[in-house]
Amino acid sequence: MNATPLTGTLDPDIIRAQLRLGHAADVAEMFATLPPAEAAGLLATLPVKRQAELFGYLPPPAHTAVAVAMRREHLARLVSAMSHDERADLFRDLDDDHREALLPALAQAEREDIRRLAAYAEGTAGSVMTSDYATLPPDLTARAALDRLRVEAPDRETIYDAYVVDARRRLLGVVSLRQIVLANARASMAELMRRDPISVRADAPRKEAANRIARYDLLALPVLDADDRLVGIVTADDAMDVQQQEATEDFHRVGTVSPLAEGVKSAGIFLLYRARIAWLVVLVFGNLFSGLGIAAFEDTIQAHIALVFFLPLLIGSGGNAGSQAATLMVRALATDDVRLSDWSRMLAREAAVAGLLGLSMALAVSLVGIVRAGPEVALVVSLAMVLIVLVGSLVGMSLPFVLARLRLDPATASAPLVTSIADALGVLIYFGIATTLLPLLL
Amino acid sequence: MNATPLTGTLDPDIIRAQLRLGHAADVAEMFATLPPAEAAGLLATLPVKRQAELFGYLPPPAHTAVAVAMRREHLARLVSAMSHDERADLFRDLDDDHREALLPALAQAEREDIRRLAAYAEGTAGSVMTSDYATLPPDLTARAALDRLRVEAPDRETIYDAYVVDARRRLLGVVSLRQIVLANARASMAELMRRDPISVRADAPRKEAANRIARYDLLALPVLDADDRLVGIVTADDAMDVQQQEATEDFHRVGTVSPLAEGVKSAGIFLLYRARIAWLVVLVFGNLFSGLGIAAFEDTIQAHIALVFFLPLLIGSGGNAGSQAATLMVRALATDDVRLSDWSRMLAREAAVAGLLGLSMALAVSLVGIVRAGPEVALVVSLAMVLIVLVGSLVGMSLPFVLARLRLDPATASAPLVTSIADALGVLIYFGIATTLLPLLL
Repeated sequence: MNATPLTGTLDPDIIRAQLRLGHAADVAEMFATLPPAEAAGLLATLPVKRQAELFGYLPPPAHTAVAVAMRREHLARLVSAMSHDERADLFRDLDDDHREALLPALAQAEREDIRRLAAYAEGTAGSVMTSDYATLPPDLTARAALDRLRVEAPDRETIYDAYVVDARRRLLGVVSLRQIVLANARASMAELMRRDPISVRADAPRKEAANRIARYDLLALPVLDADDRLVGIVTADDAMDVQQQEATEDFHRVGTVSPLAEGVKSAGIFLLYRARIAWLVVLVFGNLFSGLGIAAFEDTIQAHIALVFFLPLLIGSGGNAGSQAATLMVRALATDDVRLSDWSRMLAREAAVAGLLGLSMALAVSLVGIVRAGPEVALVVSLAMVLIVLVGSLVGMSLPFVLARLRLDPATASAPLVTSIADALGVLIYFGIATTLLPLLL
Repeated sequence: MNATPLTGTLDPDIIRAQLRLGHAADVAEMFATLPPAEAAGLLATLPVKRQAELFGYLPPPAHTAVAVAMRREHLARLVSAMSHDERADLFRDLDDDHREALLPALAQAEREDIRRLAAYAEGTAGSVMTSDYATLPPDLTARAALDRLRVEAPDRETIYDAYVVDARRRLLGVVSLRQIVLANARASMAELMRRDPISVRADAPRKEAANRIARYDLLALPVLDADDRLVGIVTADDAMDVQQQEATEDFHRVGTVSPLAEGVKSAGIFLLYRARIAWLVVLVFGNLFSGLGIAAFEDTIQAHIALVFFLPLLIGSGGNAGSQAATLMVRALATDDVRLSDWSRMLAREAAVAGLLGLSMALAVSLVGIVRAGPEVALVVSLAMVLIVLVGSLVGMSLPFVLARLRLDPATASAPLVTSIADALGVLIYFGIATTLLPLLL
């Protein structure tokens, strides 16, 4: 039911049967582990439709590697059989030399289709759409529509919604296969179709396309150009992949890892190094501020060395509360649960929640303070705790909004970034209070 | 194209038209902001099918509130019209009194269907499945199947795959509407169907169902009981919601926020307080260890007060590198990109990446060290940096695996937890090296 145990078995007949009949996702996983030349050779033994199906499931680094290892005529046959969005993705990932070598071997119409789909910038709705869909004129009857769909027989994923367009390809409505099957045979598409369907612009972020498919429970979302002409569709299964990838990217950003071009398992050491070093260095500066803050209060520290004991506790709590607040907002903004205009409402509520959190933490830390360093230090530590948790939370909560307003990715408000800022502020608040209050108390 | 501006407009005719014709997701969003009694009253003015459609899009806190505000007969009519999974979800969320009040008003078959679906534990594949699907016997012809689907006409989402079952409801295969439409009218289901379809057990985690739908690009996934009998299906749009919710929960866990029962926007102050306070308190203990570590080295610190300046920088970098490593592994485990058995391979690679990161950071920090505190301290700080980044990274990378092995959620390996552990270890490494080396060097 899960990955087939292809690699373990040695009987060539069984392997051959699995290659033909196993689920393409499972077989492709096995192909991705083979040396590219071997994978290309093994693929060549299969029917071209099956090859195209398997190829669609190969992850990005493997699919280009295998494509490059193929003979040009073999690759051209395979590309002709692939689904339109997958071959455009492959084309986008190939280098210039291989593109130029591939194009002349394809039919004119395919060349244009690939060029058109591959032209949309990475990350846009256009870059994840396919041109595998059926269009129908508005005056067609249900019976004629069914006959036409039977003949055109496009991909399984794209037959369930057909698009009604006028002579200039402007989208008039959507009609489902179910409606066509259930309708009176003489009803026209114009009568059956749902008008003003949900759609997306080709240059909108791909995340917007995925969010709309999720929100409106669609099987496919039509993609329009600036003149309202239908240029493609995004299917639900591709939207699910987009959603998964976007969540992974946000996850990584919040953990200060730059987005990876491939999966963690296959990524090389230097790719991982590059994805991590930049933020580690940037955060050094945040930590240097904390260090400078501490150095500025060296006299206070030397006079009351017991204060140092509470330092990790206080600045740690501020950073943790701030990370919590940032995490909640980053995810809420990514899923459209919260919008930019909600900032002031969210700020007021965060102040209330953080105030309660700060008071609880202050209560806990005051007991430790009395036992370890006497009531004066306990008072300083408790006061600092309330303020540090409050300030850390408000910074953590606001940073994603500020970044979004500046048209940067809110997920850049990572836990470590918020922690660094909260640490530096925490040092100032703690030693500031201590320097002011302790001479008065002691 | 996005949320309709329902609340801004005042013309009752326009409002009425929007209520009937606007997309259910948008109208439901507006309903969720109304007082429950008002929402119940407004719903009652609409056709019952439309009510059921809107109700399916209401978020959990609003759907129970509005249901409770309805007259019992009204709720019973609405429940009968709702899709099977949505009414089971509602039933699961109602308190016992309201359940008991509702059940007698329903037909026998509906009562049993609701009880059966609601019986699956929250978080299982069974809890997100629906019983809205078509089954066909293996000897039915394509023409007869089409006629039967026309008559049964179940929900749009569930007609595209029909399930071929034997007399005991054991799943034999899946046949798509497209296949039935395209097939020779006399072909039997047994000939057309795809055998051994991908399926999931009712008691498997719902995440597994969603991951399978994403991996195999399915429109719906059949759910089987322990005897291989078909008991329901999970549809792609529900899988997308599951994927989104699971990603949000992991996101929150990594940010040390306990999973929230509702969205951040509607969650109350005390719900948010409860979701955050537990981890903040737990992390205090981590920070206390760091404080105790620092206190143990008070003599070294007093002798070389310049060491304090580098403290936030060093322990911060260890925590940050550890958070990065943990983030990568938590997400990779959640998306099945990495499995438990990959641990040793991942550990070796992490050691290489972290070694490079540590050396780069040590180089940077040694320059600051020489300028600020002379070559001896610079040497201590550089050595400590390499070790701290390496140890932090290996802890951060391994913790998700350890948690998964203990059958706990890997996402509990949050950035702040890893940071706390790395901080405490960092203090020991830093001052340990300083206490050992500085007397020899100075």
